[in-house]
Amino acid sequence: MAHIKPAEIERESMKIIEAELTVRGIALNPETAAVIKRVIHTTADFDYADNLRFTSRAVERGVEALRGGVIVTDTNMALAGVSRPALTRLSGTARCFMADPETAEQAKAAGTTRAAAAVLRAEAEAPNAVLAVGNAPTALLRIAERMEMGWRPALVIGAPVGFVNVVESKERILEVCTRLDVPAIVALGRKGGSNVAAAICNALLYTAAGLLDPSSRN
Amino acid sequence: MAHIKPAEIERESMKIIEAELTVRGIALNPETAAVIKRVIHTTADFDYADNLRFTSRAVERGVEALRGGVIVTDTNMALAGVSRPALTRLSGTARCFMADPETAEQAKAAGTTRAAAAVLRAEAEAPNAVLAVGNAPTALLRIAERMEMGWRPALVIGAPVGFVNVVESKERILEVCTRLDVPAIVALGRKGGSNVAAAICNALLYTAAGLLDPSSRN
Repeated sequence: MAHIKPAEIERESMKIIEAELTVRGIALNPETAAVIKRVIHTTADFDYADNLRFTSRAVERGVEALRGGVIVTDTNMALAGVSRPALTRLSGTARCFMADPETAEQAKAAGTTRAAAAVLRAEAEAPNAVLAVGNAPTALLRIAERMEMGWRPALVIGAPVGFVNVVESKERILEVCTRLDVPAIVALGRKGGSNVAAAICNALLYTAAGLLDPSSRN
Repeated sequence: MAHIKPAEIERESMKIIEAELTVRGIALNPETAAVIKRVIHTTADFDYADNLRFTSRAVERGVEALRGGVIVTDTNMALAGVSRPALTRLSGTARCFMADPETAEQAKAAGTTRAAAAVLRAEAEAPNAVLAVGNAPTALLRIAERMEMGWRPALVIGAPVGFVNVVESKERILEVCTRLDVPAIVALGRKGGSNVAAAICNALLYTAAGLLDPSSRN
């Protein structure tokens, strides 16, 4: 059993996920199915079939933005989870400002969190980025605030995990993105994480790159 | 709501987790509670209160091993999730052999997966390491195989996620570790992930370092 190739395991896994969704009476929308299935593949958690919300044409617009585009993540863990082969194929880049000393200085000077300071750097240095938030609800709230001031990122992925401020931050970003017509993919509720944020990025990247059966999960 | 400090959010989150465990009628063992609560904190998924299995004194022995010890992860994502401040405080290190060109060469030469080749490198270069596996069931199977040949790592964290070979690989490592008296912490079933593997490492690191209220989740 140790010698099955990663691409075969991936195909077999997706078949199992599809079969179990059918058993649960869940029919996915073709537009969003690839994202939902990849998040379930990453977590083995079928709750995401209910939790994930997409604004109008969010997948299509996200895929378009990732051709030669920039992903900004809120943790180095999400950054490490974004597929390098897919990024390379699309001439895209991925960045994280969180652990940068400059971000820490700006946070200290402004009396705010590093997560919030990192959002300002993203707005200044990568205004058309796909923003992938898997950890910090304060990042989502700051993004919403800056969007009210006029910022229009290419896509907001809202997937922090946790018990304090998390549910509210995701409802808020979904409302703001819907109202301002910025594409958003949001994991409502408490669940999410850097792995979920990265999985959503990867589903979009694989679609954009035509890599429907990536040869590696990492 | 954006201005609560991370340490306060952490404390508040742990209180909510404890209260919900009580409501669910789950009384945690004091020995393993810190690990279980941190995994729930990382995933917002209470299934881990049932899924996590610990061999005899696994937490105590894992904590001891992490004082000046080495963690070897099976993904760069898990590596990125391991707390640097806690590692530094304990004079510990963390490594991942997966993305290393040398591992790719060895895998090609041996006709095996990178995950399996990375295990052999861990055995050769860090034989007393804490092994944190959050992705590759083949890594767990290879670890079990090498343990049957005599290898005794300090602790095996078995938390791959997925639908193919994953459940079996975790049952196998738990059986082998129990029989050979190597400490193991295993997330039985399909669920797990790099985030879960990193959270288990961090729970042990925080305990070893006396960092019960870490100032950051990352």
